[in-house]
Amino acid sequence: MEYFVRYGEIGIKSPKIRHKFEKRLMDNIKSELECEFENNQGRLTLKTEETNEKVADVLSRVFGIVSYSPITQTITDKEKISELIHEIIPKVIDEGKFNPQKDTFAVKCRRVGNHDFSSQEMAGYCGSVVIDITNAKVDLSNPDFTLYVEIRENKTYMFTEKIPGLGGLPVGSQGSVVCLISSGIDSPVASFQMLKRGCKIILLHCDNNPYTKNTIEKVKKQAQRLQRYSVGVKVKLYTINFGQYLEHVIKQAPPRMTCVLCKSGMYQTAAQLAKFNHANAIADGSSIGQVASQTLRNIEATRYKCRMPIFSPLISLDKIEIEAIAKTIGTYETSIIPDGGCSAVPKYPETNAELDVVNNVIDDINQKDVLEEVWNTFTKIDID
Amino acid sequence: MEYFVRYGEIGIKSPKIRHKFEKRLMDNIKSELECEFENNQGRLTLKTEETNEKVADVLSRVFGIVSYSPITQTITDKEKISELIHEIIPKVIDEGKFNPQKDTFAVKCRRVGNHDFSSQEMAGYCGSVVIDITNAKVDLSNPDFTLYVEIRENKTYMFTEKIPGLGGLPVGSQGSVVCLISSGIDSPVASFQMLKRGCKIILLHCDNNPYTKNTIEKVKKQAQRLQRYSVGVKVKLYTINFGQYLEHVIKQAPPRMTCVLCKSGMYQTAAQLAKFNHANAIADGSSIGQVASQTLRNIEATRYKCRMPIFSPLISLDKIEIEAIAKTIGTYETSIIPDGGCSAVPKYPETNAELDVVNNVIDDINQKDVLEEVWNTFTKIDID
Repeated sequence: MEYFVRYGEIGIKSPKIRHKFEKRLMDNIKSELECEFENNQGRLTLKTEETNEKVADVLSRVFGIVSYSPITQTITDKEKISELIHEIIPKVIDEGKFNPQKDTFAVKCRRVGNHDFSSQEMAGYCGSVVIDITNAKVDLSNPDFTLYVEIRENKTYMFTEKIPGLGGLPVGSQGSVVCLISSGIDSPVASFQMLKRGCKIILLHCDNNPYTKNTIEKVKKQAQRLQRYSVGVKVKLYTINFGQYLEHVIKQAPPRMTCVLCKSGMYQTAAQLAKFNHANAIADGSSIGQVASQTLRNIEATRYKCRMPIFSPLISLDKIEIEAIAKTIGTYETSIIPDGGCSAVPKYPETNAELDVVNNVIDDINQKDVLEEVWNTFTKIDID
Repeated sequence: MEYFVRYGEIGIKSPKIRHKFEKRLMDNIKSELECEFENNQGRLTLKTEETNEKVADVLSRVFGIVSYSPITQTITDKEKISELIHEIIPKVIDEGKFNPQKDTFAVKCRRVGNHDFSSQEMAGYCGSVVIDITNAKVDLSNPDFTLYVEIRENKTYMFTEKIPGLGGLPVGSQGSVVCLISSGIDSPVASFQMLKRGCKIILLHCDNNPYTKNTIEKVKKQAQRLQRYSVGVKVKLYTINFGQYLEHVIKQAPPRMTCVLCKSGMYQTAAQLAKFNHANAIADGSSIGQVASQTLRNIEATRYKCRMPIFSPLISLDKIEIEAIAKTIGTYETSIIPDGGCSAVPKYPETNAELDVVNNVIDDINQKDVLEEVWNTFTKIDID
């Protein structure tokens, strides 16, 4: 079978960047699909012996694809074109995609090259063939069914559906980002959003054991789901014994500061891992006001000591929007498995942190030294 | 008229925070609508003499509202309930919202208080009244038309539609954010997203005149559109003579560094304005990979000298998604008015900035001193 694969924003970049992005997109697809590509000035045609189901499964998970279409082709000759329409129409009627008794239709024709007919004339001709077969009604502005005819020199391609892809940019076309992942609902979605814009993701789970339990298994499952959308690029997962830092915080700092200091330490730990992995940014699942502690002042105080950019792609999303994405990508079910939460959370966590106060406490507890000890415990987890 | 006004996430907060948020939501609505509220354990009933159109206009622009419904009420008595249904049904048929010949229907009943009937019994009773009037078919799982009956003690409310609101949190329930606004498509959308999560927005336009032209008028129009969604809270707009900093950059730094140094200066300028205004964060319209210069390395290098959190709510959005929001909120048309772009952009802008190199150039050009001069030119612009 053959397919047109359409990308979006890649097309508006300079020729050099476009070429690089196209290559990345094709390589990513090839990593999971035995196939070949023909690249005709940005029109990618995928050729494969694999089943339609397999192709649909892979293309639905590859970032950078705006839409794709199974195509059939013939040579640019009216007789041949008519023959192909005679093959296609009974098939789509059979598959329930077109009901000529009820549905209106249109033919849309695009053309590249020199021909003795215009695109509109060819559309009219193809439409008349469809009417001969079905007697269906034409509606050019809002048809129920569309037959797309694309003529490139002496080749003519036809398709009847544009199946939407995920959009975004090909994974690996941008650099690496360390994504904090907690086992909850939000952080896997944030990681997914970073994949969407072409980043390689390095997941970091700060394991708060003994204050949290059974999170690693959950995180591993979430990483496996994320891997499905990182077609062509291996997702890395690290854990770290963050509980030992948290124990120090609980012993040394005022109780209300526990969560602020925990988050502050996580960002710096993520930055440390980023340095090892040549990543240039951190991402997390923060959303303003979602919980009492996600105030602007807390966010400011927890990020101050981290000198690397922190992306929070969910910062302006409602919980219900985040949950919808989590359900779509299949991380939601794992996220909601009860794990008892974190027992280190104090009765009254700080919700209005003062930057100076937090920075003083950070100095008081020798945060940097304690974190440096923790950094010896980075462990890579195999997610296969 | 009376309306149920439903909020979302506010409901899951602690009673104290919930009360504060509810008050903010009601105050915001009251700022544009002559009305009163009844707050019955989180069920907000809005009472007003204003027209339905006016109410719809205001409620469609207020963040924190998940949905609202025009309601009618009677006392909890089967006769009276039947009478009200006899009033409602011909009206909705007349308005084209219910076509009993074609549409199926359902009655959904909720009940608070002690009654000698269950919710289900009342739904059944109301359904039989509807059938008496219309002879329409019942479909409980997927009805075309729904009559909602809500019984609270001796009062019974009915409504037939739930009109979706914007979601988010009430503007002003969170702190203030300085939003960089450039006159382009992305930055007004980013500002809108910050309003969505309850932040007060302070817009900052770094005016690059003489390298850019006519941007202030565009930005003012965009600010006016944003004000429509900041119901109850005045949007502030500042400009600054950033061109004088840029002139210095062009004279002193390598040409390829112009854009990186421009953005770096903007973030620090935004942080300065934030300090004056007790804001705790900055927001901008960055989206990874959207243009050649929005690489992770450029983002890292431009943000390093800014110690305040920078939110980029569009960081993971595709251009087409950003444009869709811009069209919805009405900033798109202004954004695309041609303004000639920025003439300071070099032929080959840096796309892969090295942090150390950029930091050295920042020192070489005495960035801090030059920025401090520019900071004398903050000007507040009236957007009315």
